[in-house]
Amino acid sequence: MDSGGTTRPGGRAARVREAVRQATIAELGEKGFDGLTVEGVAARAGVHKTTVYRRWGGVEGLAADALDLAGGEPWPVPDTGSIQGDLRALTRLVVAGFADPELGPVSTAFIAAAMRNAPTARALRAFFAGRHEQSAVLVTRAVERGELPAGTDPAEVVRIAVAPLYYRLFVSGEPVDGAIADRAADAALAAARAGILRASRAPDDPA
Amino acid sequence: MDSGGTTRPGGRAARVREAVRQATIAELGEKGFDGLTVEGVAARAGVHKTTVYRRWGGVEGLAADALDLAGGEPWPVPDTGSIQGDLRALTRLVVAGFADPELGPVSTAFIAAAMRNAPTARALRAFFAGRHEQSAVLVTRAVERGELPAGTDPAEVVRIAVAPLYYRLFVSGEPVDGAIADRAADAALAAARAGILRASRAPDDPA
Repeated sequence: MDSGGTTRPGGRAARVREAVRQATIAELGEKGFDGLTVEGVAARAGVHKTTVYRRWGGVEGLAADALDLAGGEPWPVPDTGSIQGDLRALTRLVVAGFADPELGPVSTAFIAAAMRNAPTARALRAFFAGRHEQSAVLVTRAVERGELPAGTDPAEVVRIAVAPLYYRLFVSGEPVDGAIADRAADAALAAARAGILRASRAPDDPA
Repeated sequence: MDSGGTTRPGGRAARVREAVRQATIAELGEKGFDGLTVEGVAARAGVHKTTVYRRWGGVEGLAADALDLAGGEPWPVPDTGSIQGDLRALTRLVVAGFADPELGPVSTAFIAAAMRNAPTARALRAFFAGRHEQSAVLVTRAVERGELPAGTDPAEVVRIAVAPLYYRLFVSGEPVDGAIADRAADAALAAARAGILRASRAPDDPA
């Protein structure tokens, strides 16, 4: 009896899911969300398209589940020894990710898909919540080192640091590079140092 | 002879263009870019669909031309007397715009459309370049009043101030409100005061 036949159903289901998620990511990278089809993913993953329809429903469910996979992958949170170095490494990681010929189109496709359907939007929200949480340690360490005021909101520092890059890439349509990444990081750092990004800050505190 | 018959051809062409642009904006607001059709716009504008296909090519051209119209409309650049007040008014204007039941869906549809086709992406880039330019006066006045360092890059202050709102709305999928708008404005202000947003700043200047 071959190994496929002796595998427990759970094991096989997990392998199918993994193959379909990987195929979805590959298809999104090559064709974007507009070019994503159940047939294309099924063919690439080597599974029947009826299996894909039954378990994922359609392209929206495929994109959402692939994002879930992406969110679970290990991610190199910078640890350079200073908050400026860490934030610059973080913003440069975002720039490098979108410039990457494989990763960039996939990330762009996820953001485009999230603008068009609720399941992917929910998955993208969870993805970024995870990223904010994972990178919060940068700020926690900086507060412990005395580089930032106590009470600084870690997720907010991360949001403010990376936001200008996403704004340029997906809203104003302007280029990004390492110098722009550094400036975005430094701007967030200046705001955090000035006490603007404290978690408990009331809206009417003096700036 | 009725007034329609005596109008110069240029006048009629301009009226058709205006009707089609307004119809495109209305359709985008109601149905999003995915629901935008040449037939729907033509019917709403009261013109033949062959006219729309001939002059605009299709939905991409319609969205791009409507954005061009939106970019030319007068826009209330804040003038509160202080840079903090002006930047907070600016970021609150962005939040109010996306919360507006008519304007919000249209703006969202433009951003979604720009992620999917080059003509709308070019038009959106021009739209934001215009907005950055129009709002630069806030920063110029602040520098003249001595509130910000000489050489502060006006467009960069505006980008950094509004970016966190677009990031929440279109990337991380988090809510925005007046307090978040104020904090985004104050963060940009802190960065500008710290000299991070100077136009001539080299990437390796100390933060």
